[in-house]
Amino acid sequence: MTAIATARPTGPAALTADAERAYDLDRQHVFHSWSAQATLDPMVVTRAEGSYLWNGDGARFLDFTSQLVYTNLGHQHPRIVAAIQEQAASLCTIAPGYANGTRSEAARLIASHTPGDLDKVFFTNGGADANEHAIRMARLHTGKHKVLSTYRSYHGGTQLAVNVTGDPRRWPSDNGSTGTVHFFGPFLYRSSFSATTEEEECQRALAHLEQVIALEGASTIAAVILESIPGTAGIMMPPAGYLKGVRELCDRHDIVFIADEVMAGFGRAGRWFAVEHGDVVPDLLTFAKGVNSGYVPLGGVAISEKIHRTFAERTYPGGLTYSGHPLACAAAVATIETMEEENIVERVDALGREILEPGLRDLAARHPWIGEVRGTGAFWAIELVSDRATREPLAPYGGSSPAMAAIISGCTRRGLLPFSNFNRIHVVPPLTISAAEATEGLAILDAALTEAYDATR
Amino acid sequence: MTAIATARPTGPAALTADAERAYDLDRQHVFHSWSAQATLDPMVVTRAEGSYLWNGDGARFLDFTSQLVYTNLGHQHPRIVAAIQEQAASLCTIAPGYANGTRSEAARLIASHTPGDLDKVFFTNGGADANEHAIRMARLHTGKHKVLSTYRSYHGGTQLAVNVTGDPRRWPSDNGSTGTVHFFGPFLYRSSFSATTEEEECQRALAHLEQVIALEGASTIAAVILESIPGTAGIMMPPAGYLKGVRELCDRHDIVFIADEVMAGFGRAGRWFAVEHGDVVPDLLTFAKGVNSGYVPLGGVAISEKIHRTFAERTYPGGLTYSGHPLACAAAVATIETMEEENIVERVDALGREILEPGLRDLAARHPWIGEVRGTGAFWAIELVSDRATREPLAPYGGSSPAMAAIISGCTRRGLLPFSNFNRIHVVPPLTISAAEATEGLAILDAALTEAYDATR
Ligand SMILES: Cc1ncc(COP(=O)(O)O)c(C=O)c1O
Ligand SMILES: Cc1ncc(COP(=O)(O)O)c(C=O)c1O
Repeated sequence: MTAIATARPTGPAALTADAERAYDLDRQHVFHSWSAQATLDPMVVTRAEGSYLWNGDGARFLDFTSQLVYTNLGHQHPRIVAAIQEQAASLCTIAPGYANGTRSEAARLIASHTPGDLDKVFFTNGGADANEHAIRMARLHTGKHKVLSTYRSYHGGTQLAVNVTGDPRRWPSDNGSTGTVHFFGPFLYRSSFSATTEEEECQRALAHLEQVIALEGASTIAAVILESIPGTAGIMMPPAGYLKGVRELCDRHDIVFIADEVMAGFGRAGRWFAVEHGDVVPDLLTFAKGVNSGYVPLGGVAISEKIHRTFAERTYPGGLTYSGHPLACAAAVATIETMEEENIVERVDALGREILEPGLRDLAARHPWIGEVRGTGAFWAIELVSDRATREPLAPYGGSSPAMAAIISGCTRRGLLPFSNFNRIHVVPPLTISAAEATEGLAILDAALTEAYDATR
Repeated sequence: MTAIATARPTGPAALTADAERAYDLDRQHVFHSWSAQATLDPMVVTRAEGSYLWNGDGARFLDFTSQLVYTNLGHQHPRIVAAIQEQAASLCTIAPGYANGTRSEAARLIASHTPGDLDKVFFTNGGADANEHAIRMARLHTGKHKVLSTYRSYHGGTQLAVNVTGDPRRWPSDNGSTGTVHFFGPFLYRSSFSATTEEEECQRALAHLEQVIALEGASTIAAVILESIPGTAGIMMPPAGYLKGVRELCDRHDIVFIADEVMAGFGRAGRWFAVEHGDVVPDLLTFAKGVNSGYVPLGGVAISEKIHRTFAERTYPGGLTYSGHPLACAAAVATIETMEEENIVERVDALGREILEPGLRDLAARHPWIGEVRGTGAFWAIELVSDRATREPLAPYGGSSPAMAAIISGCTRRGLLPFSNFNRIHVVPPLTISAAEATEGLAILDAALTEAYDATR
């Protein structure tokens, strides 16, 4: 994520001794993801609380990224911290084969919020392995092999998950997975179907998928996997009817519908799960991140009755040492209970409608670089273009640009951590952000956009 | 793992109310790994401490499994518990792109114990993703694609990791990974090379690997991945010289040598890393489990200078949301410091030589079913055969048998949790087990073997 790599400290010289040691040892021993190691200059984080974190110089930053869009209840939520401490005191870990009260309770709470009959939970450590296992379940359930996924998507970093992914992070590993086929999802602003209305985009995207299924051969396709709302790729809200259309195509052709809710789920989109916006029930739903605000690594697959039945008498051939880890499950229980009791989902929906959407639309009205604002809840993207008429992106697909770098550094210099990807800034703060904090962040974004734009005149 | 699935409670009826709820919710909502869901009857674990755990009826069990061979410092080690609680109080999580003192310190401590120049650490959530990323590094480093691994191995549950795996858990997923090739490792007791001595086995196994490399084409092979001591597959100690021979073949053919130390590493084999027994330095070393006793999900890849250099200016195209999770790293710091200060590695080596090996050899002398005893440190297997002359396994490859089931239930009825796999019982207790506890466990195994054997007469 560019957001993180570009959030630089003012320099090691200004760091406190502890932070300096953290920095030096990091550069000596920590191998960083998605990076060229010699080019890194990571910001040291020494403290975090609520919507803020502090670097090694003691400078404070408002976190408009929720890290990698996962600290949904903010940093150091006291209830989750206490739950982890209590679970640690009683039982840190137990192997997956046993039954354990905390794991059982986490599964119950998750199942109580997943749509339809997605009542069984297979726990994993994160999002990538959740998708890997969901695909395996779909393959064995259908006896078919191919997986269809969209361009402009991210499903994780392991070999199968990254090959299902539709972004440039796939390319270097696009050499070891059979049966992964990409199609185009709906995205009116850059329509792959020459559509001019959401309705047209929806119809044409469904017709396209129908053709892909026909020409790949329905008898070869195990699953369609989709982010219910594609996240890192641009928070592209599916048009009304699209997910229902996918559901219908999957039903018609005996294809498993896997909804990847790793980023969009657990309140991020102003619903418990983003599929609720499309009013559909997938056959498998994968989650991670928001399930426990990432306080302990956890992911999983919520499984429909139909697929569960496939593995009633037949062994499910998959697993991992830490499936259903009690410490991770304790954090999930605390997170979900907090979300329930504090009406977080409803509040996020309101935050989106009352603060973030009007605030971003106001920016769009004043900043010529903003080509489109889209999103819901605490899940927003602004699409930046050098020319509103041609929609020329402010940075190329897969890359960055001086203009994007200027906006990002304008934010961080003013104490805001923005989430950026190519030509987009995503506004994805903790679900618990206050109206005042959200407004403060938008004002910084406003100033950074003005400064960067003016510098090019 | 059969070990876990067969450790049954005396029945839900006898459970306390809390345990009963845990059991019921588990059956309603938890999807279990490597199992047919309708056939499960998991034991509820309510408490664990040191080498023991307790089921829902309050019955105590001596844990000769270390769960899935990962609770290396036993259950609820006070120092690891405290470290988790303290880290939770200060900073539960921060994204991988930042630098953080706990993560830096964990990387430093790990690097201080890995052999040779394996000084950079890429953190993952567990063993499977560690192997997935190690293979990606090898592929990009060499520009080649194939991965050679052994039959009789386990490398994890995700699609690529399970396809590299050489046990029956691969079969149902053996359909989506190109470039995975299996060869035979050394295993004198069931030699694939008609060898009669360890030396012969070693020479022939190396000649076999050399032929596989020649015939697959050295120019197509990115990596050889090996468990330094194959674990779940049978704790088959490589003969003297074997790992050196593999190292030499890899050097000669520009092949990356990946040592999978997920199970064998961090003291299990009476050394910090099991490759030390073979006196070699691999190019990549994967770890998980013992690194923090599994108190928080954590794995990783230790990376040599040569491979690190490949990704100095070039982006490493891989990552995961929870890479270097501070809570997991805090548990690793506490685990490694404890191991250093309490000389755990030396003590495990002595435990193996003074208690476990003599104890198991004594059992072998008295029980006709024991065909072979092998291992080191706290990492032992007894290979059970119905006939010592023909070496007919007491259960078929990939399966179980009434005799094996009788041994296992004989153990659990007497309060011992054994680790079993096919026709083997592994003795893999916590590294911190006392001599008295180890002796108690061996006595139970003795009684269970006698009882099961006598029942067949
Ligand atoms: C939609 C989606 N799926 C899967 C993943 C992978 O999750 P993880 O990084 O935990 O493997 C991500 C991570 O950003 C994601 O956004
Ligand atoms: C040698 C070895 N490698 C890899 C793995 C996979 O680790 P995980 O279950 O954490 O994915 C295991 C697990 O037992 C293992 O024993």
